[in-house]
Amino acid sequence: MDNPDETTALISAGKVTGTPVFNTGGEQLGEIYDVMLDKRSGRIAYAIMSFGGVLGIGLRYHPLPWDSLKYDTRQQGYVVGLTIAELEEAPEFDVAVTPLWAAGAV
Amino acid sequence: MDNPDETTALISAGKVTGTPVFNTGGEQLGEIYDVMLDKRSGRIAYAIMSFGGVLGIGLRYHPLPWDSLKYDTRQQGYVVGLTIAELEEAPEFDVAVTPLWAAGAV
Repeated sequence: MDNPDETTALISAGKVTGTPVFNTGGEQLGEIYDVMLDKRSGRIAYAIMSFGGVLGIGLRYHPLPWDSLKYDTRQQGYVVGLTIAELEEAPEFDVAVTPLWAAGAV
Repeated sequence: MDNPDETTALISAGKVTGTPVFNTGGEQLGEIYDVMLDKRSGRIAYAIMSFGGVLGIGLRYHPLPWDSLKYDTRQQGYVVGLTIAELEEAPEFDVAVTPLWAAGAV
């Protein structure tokens, strides 16, 4: 097996984490921060992209539906249909200050 | 909020990783090494438990169905119905002898 953390059908959460995320214009939006799992249904709830910030300070977070992540082998990252402007204007999903998903807001 | 990486319904893959795994007798079998995700269906395929080894050398791996992981708050770990003997006798699922993903082969 050449890719023990990835097969045609499967990928490890550890490999998804850290993968860059681009928009369709080739701009890097951020990277995958973590993957949220639904405990009971056994489904992937969504991926969390981190973006912005400097040296890890001021990072913001944005949920991305698992289905929305299309891997592009050339860019070696996921491509999503989201502009930087849309991302900047999106409601705060800031785990650093008010972790909305912990608060059950998502 | 105390647990931004966990809610009643959801848990982050990053929080699952590293969680100890015990058998029903209270013996620690190993810990969660990673979580395999089914790319197309969006389902959690299984968790991978690492066990054995010394200082990370000689670690072995064993797949655990997501459904089989019951969290025990007292032990702060998952409990599975698996004995150490069963684990030792299980077919090799050994990424440690040739740690391809650690070697950057993936």
